[in-house]
Parts: sequence; structure tokens; C-alpha cells
Amino acid sequence: MNIILASTSTLFGQQYLAYLKKEVIDLFKGINEIIFIPFARPGGISHEEYTKKAADFFATINIGVKGLHEFDDQIKALENAKGFFTGGGNTFLLVKTLQELDLMSVLKENIESGKPYLGCSAGSNIGGINMKTTNDMPIVYPPSFDCMGLVPFNINPHYLDPQPHLQHNGETRETRILEFLTQNNIKVVGLREGNWIRRIGNSISVEGTELTRIFEPGKAAYEIEAGSNL
Amino acid sequence: MNIILASTSTLFGQQYLAYLKKEVIDLFKGINEIIFIPFARPGGISHEEYTKKAADFFATINIGVKGLHEFDDQIKALENAKGFFTGGGNTFLLVKTLQELDLMSVLKENIESGKPYLGCSAGSNIGGINMKTTNDMPIVYPPSFDCMGLVPFNINPHYLDPQPHLQHNGETRETRILEFLTQNNIKVVGLREGNWIRRIGNSISVEGTELTRIFEPGKAAYEIEAGSNL
Repeated sequence: MNIILASTSTLFGQQYLAYLKKEVIDLFKGINEIIFIPFARPGGISHEEYTKKAADFFATINIGVKGLHEFDDQIKALENAKGFFTGGGNTFLLVKTLQELDLMSVLKENIESGKPYLGCSAGSNIGGINMKTTNDMPIVYPPSFDCMGLVPFNINPHYLDPQPHLQHNGETRETRILEFLTQNNIKVVGLREGNWIRRIGNSISVEGTELTRIFEPGKAAYEIEAGSNL
Repeated sequence: MNIILASTSTLFGQQYLAYLKKEVIDLFKGINEIIFIPFARPGGISHEEYTKKAADFFATINIGVKGLHEFDDQIKALENAKGFFTGGGNTFLLVKTLQELDLMSVLKENIESGKPYLGCSAGSNIGGINMKTTNDMPIVYPPSFDCMGLVPFNINPHYLDPQPHLQHNGETRETRILEFLTQNNIKVVGLREGNWIRRIGNSISVEGTELTRIFEPGKAAYEIEAGSNL
């Protein structure tokens, strides 16, 4: 496999995908066109608007982009594609759409056969075992929470440390993930913004500028440095 | 109906349910025992621990508390109860448990027949039409997202205004609710901590110390004052 699962598409104050540009060039080396999966629709924007945003970035590295929604036969489109990018937004909407169109398993098979895949945020959540560690609001009901399992753990993108100044009683991210562990025997990678998971063949590492917080059943949470194997 | 749906059980720096004490006394007037529904299990604590926490508060107002998990026949326990309190925690876990045990519809019928109901946080979410505006992490997969519809709208508890100092790319609460509205034709009440919804018969109002933010399809979000009808 040859994949990047990134916490976010955009760092604060930067342009879309700017911090990942070098990595994306490396990921898609030798490829001149990819398929963009716009189904997570951040902020409710249209598939067309979202695809244009991705295409504008990829034009700067000479890669063409087609939106998956443009194809009549979307399964065939995935089979014929050279690489994939799934953008962020709402994970429930993304998973529901992919499952209802029978696309999730086709995408998985094509990535497992070696085609490069870039996911950001919701697009990274679907690379995990299931979507039960998304931060998103459950605005639609998907047929299941199962995802592609491109890595043998779950991802919590946009991982956020507790904000002690907030006089608010909502759960911290850590509390939420610990609740997940009471119900699931699955490791969770808390991926701070600025970090990404890189899988090349069977080697899986975490990369980026921040420490990464790991949650495992029966263990205290701990931090690992960029470059560590997962 | 005679119900309170509160944003939170606990205000910052205060004791459990302290800010609601006067309202809770009024809600359960003439009743000396209620059933507590502990299934949302905040922080993964046991049903026993959670029931004890509720019982300790209700002891101060001379009301006995039995945990629903203590009964062999939980449907009968709901039918025989004089009033109900559902505590906060994880809404997915709460809804999955109530639906799998066939308790959601029984609870709804008993509340609609006039028995008093107090919900906090997750316990308030289940009073809405569905749980698609919860803030919780989807740590388990419920049979559906449908809830009791004790009020003709959805609730977003712990409503939180944008935090502009946060250099973080996760969605604001308002963005999430606006995404919900692209997929659902349902009004959402953004209930800040310190506020609650009070239904007495057919009169539904919002009460408490804060303004309440209302989101409706096709309208800009707007604020209403405590005491306003919903």
C-alpha cells in the first residue's frame, strides 16, 4: 500500500494542503490524474465546488482531478483510476454515501492493490477500522460504521488537548476516546493537526510536526514522536 | 406532559444538579421515588456508581432513586414508576441500550401519559426527534438514531460558541448544526449550559440564565431570551 492519512487538510493561517505539498508530490509520483471523492461536503458545499477546490491545488503540481460524482458508473471509475483523494467534512455523510453506492469495498480493494490514496480528516477516518472515533455530528444514519481498515487501528483526526480555560462541561477529546475503549478493543491514534500517517507497503509510521497521542485498551495514554512506527 | 430537558447536569465549579434544584423539586412535587436511567455511563463508570451519584442528590430533596438496571423486568419497572431521570454521558450508548431492550417506546408512552421526566445532556437529546444533533462520539452503533420526540425539534446540549483563539481546524458547533440542516428539515435548539427546556402540558419554553440559539432550515440562526416559547 501507498497511503497518507492526514489529520487535517489545512493548517491555521495556511492555504489548502500547503503543509502537505511535498508529501503529496511524493505520494502521487508518476501519476497525472486522480479521482477526488467529495461526498463529505464540508459546510454543506456542493460536490462541484469541493472538487474545484481540490483541483485548484492539484493543478499546481500538474495532476488532473475528476470528481467521483461526475461518473455514471462510479465503480468502474474507481477501478480505472490511478489514485485517490478523499477530502474532509462530515464522516457520517461520507460513509453513508460510499456504503449505499457500494463504493467502500471497491475503493479498499483498489488501494490495497497499490494505488496511492490521500485522505484528510473524514477521508482519514475511513482508512481506520471503523468510524467510531470521528469527531463529527451524526447528521445522517449510515448502514454501518465499518470502514476500510487500511491500517490496523482507528484514527481520531484533529486531536485536541484539553482546554482548561474553558468553563464548559462537555467531554474532552481524551474522555471521549477513553469511553470508546470501554466498548471497543481497538487502538486509537490521536492525530494532532500537522501530523499524518504514512503507509508504504507494510511499514506504517506517523509523521509531521507534533507528538502523537496513542490510546490502547488497558494502558495509560502515551505520546510518540514523528517518525515512530505504528 | 411535565418535563425538563437540561443542557447539562452540572455548571462549572458547582455541585451535581445544584443549579436545577428548585426546578427539580417543582417537577417531582408529590413523588417520593423515581427511576434513574444510567445507561449513558459518562466516563465509562458503572451503572451502580452512576445511580449512586443521582441518588445522593435526590436524597437531599427526599426522593428515593432506583437504577433501571436493577430490575429483572425493566419494561414493567418503567410502567410502574412515578417519574424518571436520565443522566448524561454518551448518547449513542444510551440510545443503543434503550432501543435494544425495547425501552425507548415504553418510556415515551409513560412520559406522554403525564409522568414527570428530567433529562440532562444525553438524557435531553433523547427527548428530541432524533439524536442527530448530539455532540457525542459514535462509540457504538445503535439500531437507529430515532428518539422520543417529546418536543417537536432537536436539541444540541452544551451549545458552545465559536472559540476564535483556538488555532484549530475542527468545525465549530454552529458549522456542524448548519451541516445537519443541509440533510434534515428539523429545527435545532442550541441549549447553552445553564439553560433548560420546560414542557408543561402543551406549553414549551426555554428557561435559565443564558440566551438560546435557534437554527431553522432556510433562516439565519437567531437568539431568544429565557422565558420564550418554543
